Amino acid sequence: MAVTNTTRIGGIMTNIVNHQITLAGRPVGLPKSSDWELAEAPVPDLEDGQVLVKVHYISVDPAMRGWMNDRDTYVPALKLGDVMRAFTVGEVIASQNSAFAAGDLVAGIDGVQEYAVSDGSFLMKADTSLAPLTAYLNTLGIAGLTAYCGLIEVGAPKEGETIVVSGAAGSVGAHVGQIAKIKGCRAVGIAGGPKKCAFLTDELGFDAAIDYKNEDINAGLARTCPDGIDVFFDNVGGEVLDAALAIINFHARVVICGAISQYNNTTPVVGPSNYLNLLIRSGRMEGYIYFNWRAQWPSMIEQLAKWRADGDLKCPDDIVEGGVGAFPDTLLRLFSGENFGKLMIKVAD
Amino acid sequence: MAVTNTTRIGGIMTNIVNHQITLAGRPVGLPKSSDWELAEAPVPDLEDGQVLVKVHYISVDPAMRGWMNDRDTYVPALKLGDVMRAFTVGEVIASQNSAFAAGDLVAGIDGVQEYAVSDGSFLMKADTSLAPLTAYLNTLGIAGLTAYCGLIEVGAPKEGETIVVSGAAGSVGAHVGQIAKIKGCRAVGIAGGPKKCAFLTDELGFDAAIDYKNEDINAGLARTCPDGIDVFFDNVGGEVLDAALAIINFHARVVICGAISQYNNTTPVVGPSNYLNLLIRSGRMEGYIYFNWRAQWPSMIEQLAKWRADGDLKCPDDIVEGGVGAFPDTLLRLFSGENFGKLMIKVAD
Repeated sequence: MAVTNTTRIGGIMTNIVNHQITLAGRPVGLPKSSDWELAEAPVPDLEDGQVLVKVHYISVDPAMRGWMNDRDTYVPALKLGDVMRAFTVGEVIASQNSAFAAGDLVAGIDGVQEYAVSDGSFLMKADTSLAPLTAYLNTLGIAGLTAYCGLIEVGAPKEGETIVVSGAAGSVGAHVGQIAKIKGCRAVGIAGGPKKCAFLTDELGFDAAIDYKNEDINAGLARTCPDGIDVFFDNVGGEVLDAALAIINFHARVVICGAISQYNNTTPVVGPSNYLNLLIRSGRMEGYIYFNWRAQWPSMIEQLAKWRADGDLKCPDDIVEGGVGAFPDTLLRLFSGENFGKLMIKVAD
Repeated sequence: MAVTNTTRIGGIMTNIVNHQITLAGRPVGLPKSSDWELAEAPVPDLEDGQVLVKVHYISVDPAMRGWMNDRDTYVPALKLGDVMRAFTVGEVIASQNSAFAAGDLVAGIDGVQEYAVSDGSFLMKADTSLAPLTAYLNTLGIAGLTAYCGLIEVGAPKEGETIVVSGAAGSVGAHVGQIAKIKGCRAVGIAGGPKKCAFLTDELGFDAAIDYKNEDINAGLARTCPDGIDVFFDNVGGEVLDAALAIINFHARVVICGAISQYNNTTPVVGPSNYLNLLIRSGRMEGYIYFNWRAQWPSMIEQLAKWRADGDLKCPDDIVEGGVGAFPDTLLRLFSGENFGKLMIKVAD
C-alpha cells in the first residue's frame, strides 16, 4: 500500500522499526555470525530529492563477500556499522523526487534492510508488464545483466565458437550458457554434482556439463572441448581457471566475472599459473562489472525480457523466507554450493 | 659477393661447410652446453621457389628459451636435431624464387646457421636506405615491432596516461618507453641496476626508473606512479607483474609480452596473485605476438624508421663476435641480465 503524504510519513515511520543487517566485523575466511548485527533504526523524514523504498526482495550474491573487506574496490569499502550493501527490489512508498512516485516498483541498491531512503540515483523503475518483480534481481537484473555484459560485451562470442562457463548452475552462469546458445555457440558448463549438471544439459540446453566434484577438471574439459575453448567465462578461479587456460584457442577471451573459490581464502589468492598461454595464443583476460554499461541497460533488459518470454532464457528464483534476519545464513549457502538458481530473501510482499 | 647461377652454386656450396647450432637436449632450467650441438651440413641445391641466404647477423631473444621446450606454442616445437630457430638478417646469394634476387638484403627466420635455404615465405627485403641492416633485428625488426604492436595495438595508450614497462633496458622495453613518450604518455621503466636505470632516464627520456635490485618494487611503483598505472607492459612476470597489478587503474591494459623471470623455472610458473584486480578495475590482460600484424609491418617499419631517423627512438646494437659457435653462451647473457641493447651475433659481413 502506497502512502503519499511525506509529511505524514515522517511521523508514521518513526513508529516503524526498520530492521537492518549491519557489518559488525571483518571476516577472515567465511563470514561468521559475529560479523553481523541485526540492528533497528527509525525511518527518517524525507528531504528534497529523496525517495523512500519498502524493500520486497534482497539479492544475495557472491560479490558481497568482497564488499565486507576493508578495501575499496569498484565501490567504496563499507565501514563497520554500515548497513550491508545489497541489490534489492521494492516499492516506492514516499517520494520527494520528481523522477519517482509512490507506488512505483523499483530495483536498486537499498541494502539488507526493510526500508531505505536514498536520492534515487541508483533506483530504476521495474516494468512488471515485462516480468515479475523478482526477475529484476534475476534475468532482468544482476544475474542476467552480468551475464549479458560479460559474455556479449567482453567475451564477444562468434557463432560456432565454444564457450565454457564455470559456476554454471549459479544464476550468472546459467544465463551465460543460455545466451551462448542463443548466439549460436557451443555451451559447456562446469558445476558441482550430477543434479546441477543434469539441470544444465536437460533444462537449460547446455551442450555438455562437467561435474568437477566427480571428474578431473582437465579430463572433463578435454572430453567436452575437443576444439579448445574460445571464450572462458570464469566465476570460480583457482584450478578451474588454470585448467581452462591450458586449452584456450588463438585469440581466446577469458572473462573474469568472479572467483568464488578464492573469496574466503585466508592465504593469498592463487594466481593462474597458465596465464602465459595468453601470450602463446594471443589471448585476452578481462574483468568488468556490469555497471560499466549502465547507459545500455534499458535495451539489454528489453532483449533479456524477450528471450525470457520466448522461453530461451530461464533461471529459477531461489527464494528464502524469513526477512533480513535470514541474511547471514543465506549468504553462506552461496559458498557451500547448496543454492540453485538466483538466491534472494523475501522481506515483504 | 652475390652468386647468381644456382646450378653452379650447388656444386660450389657442397664444398662449403654450413656451421649450425642444433638442439641436442631439452633443458631443465637454464640451457646448458649439452643442450646444443655445433653441427656441419652441406648447402643443398636449390629447388624451384627456393632462396639461399648467407646469414650476416643472428638475433638472440628471450623467446628462444620457450622454443627449446617440447611443446607447440605459436610456432611448432623444435625437434631434437633441428637447427635452432632464430631471427636473422643476411644476403640472398642465390634464388629460384621470382620475389628475390641475388644481392637482396633480407630479414627472416633463418636459424642459428651460416647459410639457409627456404621458400622465402618468411623473408622480407631490408631497405638499407632507411637504416643499416642490423636495425632490422633491432628498431625495424623484432625489438621495435614487438614494442610497437604490443604498446600501440594491444596497450592502446592515450596521451597523459602512465605507462610502466618491465625489462625496460632490454631491447623491447627500451622501445616501449620511447614510443610511450612519443605518444605523449608518462613512461616509467623497471630495470636491474643503477647503470641501466640511468640509461633509461638520461639517454632514452623515460620519466622515471625503478632499480628492482636496489628498491622494493612496490615502493618503487608507489614512488613513480602516484596516479596508478594505465598500461603495464610486462616482459618479466612473477612478483613484478603482481606489484603492477596491485595499482592498475580503471580500464588498465596489461600487455603480456614475456615473462623472463619464469622461463627457466623448474617449478610451475607463478601466476599473478593480484589478477582479480582485473575484475575490480575492469582491466584487461592480453598476450600477443607481433606476427599477428604482419600485414601492417611495412607501414609500421616506415614509422619506426622515421622516429629512428629523428632521434626519438634509440636502442644500441649489442653485437657479439664469434659466429654461430658463440650462440650457447650468448643466449645465457639474456638471463643473467648482463646484456645491454639488442643482442645479436655477427656471423658474416
